[in-house]
Amino acid sequence: MPRPLHSEDAILQRVKRASTALPPKSHPLALAVGDDAALWAPRKGHQTILTCDWFLEGTHFLRYKHSADAIGWKCLARAVSDVAAMGGNPRCFLLGLALPATHTGSWLDEFLEGLQRAARRFGCLLAGGDTTLARKILLNVTVVGEVRAGHALVRSGARPDDILYVSGQLGAAELGLRLLRSHSGLAKPKDPNLRRHLYPEPRLELGRWLAEKRIATAMVDLSDGLSSDLPRLCAASRVGAVVETSTLPGARPMTLPVTRFRKHPKVGADALRLALNGGDDYELLFTVPPKKAQALPHSFKGIPLTAIGVITHRRKIVWIDPTGRIHTVRPGGWDPFRRSTNS
Amino acid sequence: MPRPLHSEDAILQRVKRASTALPPKSHPLALAVGDDAALWAPRKGHQTILTCDWFLEGTHFLRYKHSADAIGWKCLARAVSDVAAMGGNPRCFLLGLALPATHTGSWLDEFLEGLQRAARRFGCLLAGGDTTLARKILLNVTVVGEVRAGHALVRSGARPDDILYVSGQLGAAELGLRLLRSHSGLAKPKDPNLRRHLYPEPRLELGRWLAEKRIATAMVDLSDGLSSDLPRLCAASRVGAVVETSTLPGARPMTLPVTRFRKHPKVGADALRLALNGGDDYELLFTVPPKKAQALPHSFKGIPLTAIGVITHRRKIVWIDPTGRIHTVRPGGWDPFRRSTNS
Repeated sequence: MPRPLHSEDAILQRVKRASTALPPKSHPLALAVGDDAALWAPRKGHQTILTCDWFLEGTHFLRYKHSADAIGWKCLARAVSDVAAMGGNPRCFLLGLALPATHTGSWLDEFLEGLQRAARRFGCLLAGGDTTLARKILLNVTVVGEVRAGHALVRSGARPDDILYVSGQLGAAELGLRLLRSHSGLAKPKDPNLRRHLYPEPRLELGRWLAEKRIATAMVDLSDGLSSDLPRLCAASRVGAVVETSTLPGARPMTLPVTRFRKHPKVGADALRLALNGGDDYELLFTVPPKKAQALPHSFKGIPLTAIGVITHRRKIVWIDPTGRIHTVRPGGWDPFRRSTNS
Repeated sequence: MPRPLHSEDAILQRVKRASTALPPKSHPLALAVGDDAALWAPRKGHQTILTCDWFLEGTHFLRYKHSADAIGWKCLARAVSDVAAMGGNPRCFLLGLALPATHTGSWLDEFLEGLQRAARRFGCLLAGGDTTLARKILLNVTVVGEVRAGHALVRSGARPDDILYVSGQLGAAELGLRLLRSHSGLAKPKDPNLRRHLYPEPRLELGRWLAEKRIATAMVDLSDGLSSDLPRLCAASRVGAVVETSTLPGARPMTLPVTRFRKHPKVGADALRLALNGGDDYELLFTVPPKKAQALPHSFKGIPLTAIGVITHRRKIVWIDPTGRIHTVRPGGWDPFRRSTNS
């Protein structure tokens, strides 16, 4: 078992050893881990995407429920998802790592393994960062990506009459979290929903395709839940939306599509509320002009693309149930300052 | 008094309102706060500098000793210092902000004021970030800078016989910290050393000048103390160094230069140890080839530039006292994993 480390330099050395060795010649990163800063020169005709994300013990994960490997994967995956939501390519990242001294041995090794696997999967090179001591495990990941100049998909591009789409299933990660909570000990991800919670897959290929082909007009990733993220897209675009809840693609093991408030036997979850408020799915929510929507396939490389509503002039978000009744849905997704209102 | 905020979006709005409004046309930032990520396109012929820094309650500052204003200033200043150490220009930053719910009212406003003043001073625009809830005040700042391609000053460029220089005074910030600790309540920075601890000034102009004129061969900022940061520069350059301790420019109120182990009456500090191990000075440590060193002025815009030693082939760091005796100085600067060994 590796011994705990007792100097910042020693920890930095371990992080550096574990960092991805992508061929530096093909990469716009000129200087990585070990200097005051990293040096980056994006390819000609490209813009750089910059985004950072917290991943904190107690707020985003639990030390005795989430394995170090899953924490390593997820801290990068969730930051990379913001690059996917712009239609870009993640290229490198900075790791802010603060640990208790007790976690600088085998925990750190396992964490770096998960991080490393995610880095390879997403094509994202460790470029630098900062390590320090803390009582809790604190992670902050900054991802640097690239997108062809003028092709980035922002939140503010949605226009009235655009069709609103969502990728994949909604509520899967929240369902996985509930399964995790209902068991004691560290999770072993057999259940597909639990896997979605522990090892999310940012929709990078889909995001790039929607941006490059200029199909979508606006896009956001669903990190906090549809009821929280849709209002943000609408506010940025100065539009409203009408969503038909019967079309929402709920997570298995529920029947698809979700048509009414149904209880999931194992976790007592309400399928519609899960789809509306479940966070951490990292699916893409995007808008497509009506003409282009007609030609949009029902799935992209196995990921379902579902039309769930339409963008409106009127700046209100309206949720219609299968009986035609209109509901008010207040943002009920993940917001650490509000405490979850999920059922 | 502003009310505490209870949603992530409301906090983001307040951060956004307080963010610097630099003219966007002159700035390579195409998209700032409010989308999934920021968009950045550096000027032609330039490389992007990327660096991130922790600033954590309990590790780097104390809630009841450091004012919110000073915390706002310093979290940006210390990250910007890494850009100064590369000879670059800071241009924008991402703010990772995690707060207790009790600190989202007036504390947040005061923090943003200090941050904002630092942002204007350093010419560094808030580009985005992430906010969340935490028990302690947690800050992680990513700074994005620019440097003319090929001009960045890295740690690995020092060559044998280069002269080793340091800017300003050493140990001032550590002395300030001790003064702060010896008083009860929040600090009001009248003492210049206390000011250096609370409101550090990264050596941006000096760093740029040394890089643009191609004067220095290697450079690092003194964030953890000379005895910790010099070994890092030497290790990266695969060289050693001989330092004459009598030349070290100690902080006032001690006599300059520091010639022997002397006690500062007020805080019982040992001047030489302060100069060797004092962290948080954010002065620049750099190497200059002998020919160029002859032409180097003794100060740059009021900041003293002091030759403190020479780079050697032999990969050892040797400290010579005024009597000619050789000392072994183990890294004794700031390292959260080691616990400070300062006197």
